[in-house]
Amino acid sequence: MKKIRAAIVGYGNIGKYVLEALEAAPDFEVAGVVRRNPSEVPVELKEYKVVSKITELEKVDVAVLCTPTRSVESYAKEILSLGINTVDSYDIHGGIVALRRSLNAVAKAHNAVSVISAGWDPGSDSVVRALLEAMVPKGITYTNFGPGMSMGHTVAVKAIEGVKAALSMTIPTGTGIHRRMVYIEVKEGYDFAKVAAAIKADEYFAHDETHVMQVECVDNLLDMGHGVQLTRKGVSGKTQNQLIDFNMKINNPALTAQILVSVARASFKQQPGAYTMIELPVIDMLYGDKEDLIRRLV
Amino acid sequence: MKKIRAAIVGYGNIGKYVLEALEAAPDFEVAGVVRRNPSEVPVELKEYKVVSKITELEKVDVAVLCTPTRSVESYAKEILSLGINTVDSYDIHGGIVALRRSLNAVAKAHNAVSVISAGWDPGSDSVVRALLEAMVPKGITYTNFGPGMSMGHTVAVKAIEGVKAALSMTIPTGTGIHRRMVYIEVKEGYDFAKVAAAIKADEYFAHDETHVMQVECVDNLLDMGHGVQLTRKGVSGKTQNQLIDFNMKINNPALTAQILVSVARASFKQQPGAYTMIELPVIDMLYGDKEDLIRRLV
Repeated sequence: MKKIRAAIVGYGNIGKYVLEALEAAPDFEVAGVVRRNPSEVPVELKEYKVVSKITELEKVDVAVLCTPTRSVESYAKEILSLGINTVDSYDIHGGIVALRRSLNAVAKAHNAVSVISAGWDPGSDSVVRALLEAMVPKGITYTNFGPGMSMGHTVAVKAIEGVKAALSMTIPTGTGIHRRMVYIEVKEGYDFAKVAAAIKADEYFAHDETHVMQVECVDNLLDMGHGVQLTRKGVSGKTQNQLIDFNMKINNPALTAQILVSVARASFKQQPGAYTMIELPVIDMLYGDKEDLIRRLV
Repeated sequence: MKKIRAAIVGYGNIGKYVLEALEAAPDFEVAGVVRRNPSEVPVELKEYKVVSKITELEKVDVAVLCTPTRSVESYAKEILSLGINTVDSYDIHGGIVALRRSLNAVAKAHNAVSVISAGWDPGSDSVVRALLEAMVPKGITYTNFGPGMSMGHTVAVKAIEGVKAALSMTIPTGTGIHRRMVYIEVKEGYDFAKVAAAIKADEYFAHDETHVMQVECVDNLLDMGHGVQLTRKGVSGKTQNQLIDFNMKINNPALTAQILVSVARASFKQQPGAYTMIELPVIDMLYGDKEDLIRRLV
């Protein structure tokens, strides 16, 4: 069997888990890792090529972009222009349609496929939300996140004067409303009460129920577990009170990475262009013979 | 907007709910109803054409097959041969691959599309099972059905001597194991204990925990509510203990009917051939502009 050769572009937290997911997949091989400083080679990369440009790697079929969200578009354009498929977990909800248009044009021009915004939200949650609407067209879906660390909110806390270290946890209280539990270490010479007030006044927190707590060591609280509960109550045809929910408790970067690898597989079954996950047949994300999968899963 | 003209073929329990789902959908119109006895016209069909052959209806785009599962294949072949798309909720798991092959050939030959085994199981549950494997490739998925009435088991009980009326409920006890709660009215002159023993010895019940209860009136117990809990625990990449579950409490025929209508919509976005639901992009099942759907759901 010819394996799919995948390059990992960016080797932070997600990149590390993508390496594991590629190693665990029967139909992939790692073409190499692209990172800013290719001389930094951690032990698990010893047997792989680590380079600063994707063109230094051989026969790359697909690039798994593990860069910060804001650099996804430029990396994807450059790589698609080489005729190499890309997958990313771009997660700025308001920018997804624009990114899809932009990458769609480049992908089509170079006979490549790009799967964008593939992770768990946006990503598998999006597929569930779409499926719930196909089942229950009228009604309300609530996406309840957590308990889990919010990267964006944690960064916002760290930017506030007097904060030495921070962790912002997202706690679901139902109907899409979230509590923010903020744990901080305070810099010497700063007053906890004033720092806490500044956090609560920040735009990231001002509209949510926010609790700020001082701790000795934020690092001891860090955990990459996360969760989601998606619920929909509504109407199928003219029948009310159809109740559905979807729950998970997962390792956040591990799930994102696995989904990136699954959609990388799916990318080879699509026509040139850019796609979100709700535009892909789910079967295309799976390894194995089509009829065997149908026999086992349908 | 040109609406999709749908014919309902078979007008039992599912057919009635399909009528409601078509009436509620903004992009469909009812071309008519095909039934064995077209002179039987219940009040809700007064404004529609009721005929005995689909060829008597005008400009049918898609036929929603609401016939018994065992007649799906012959109806579908006949209708696909007219160049009309078909959707069905064929539910014999072991026969799905063969049905797909058979209808795929006919559909391709007549430039039509057939979506098979579309309901909730097989159907939306299949999409969830496939998605869970894309997220968590290693592990076990359990599908726990109920509480709800099992049609197949109820028919099996009714076939046993001495049973006047029956209801077999499926009760989930976890890990895909089910308890059967059987409620019966006993015919005069029969001994309940003997009838109950015969039920427990039947092939449908011999391998499950089965409780048989005598009641005054089975009809008073009937309810079309049903449920499912799908759980998967497994490994994403090399990360263990990823926990996901999907739950629903729904009106059984209403959900089946709604999904039939949603996949009827999707059938017009596929190349000629036969498909199961896991082969369709979920977005194709939804009404609305593609970019609007992506903006709202991804």
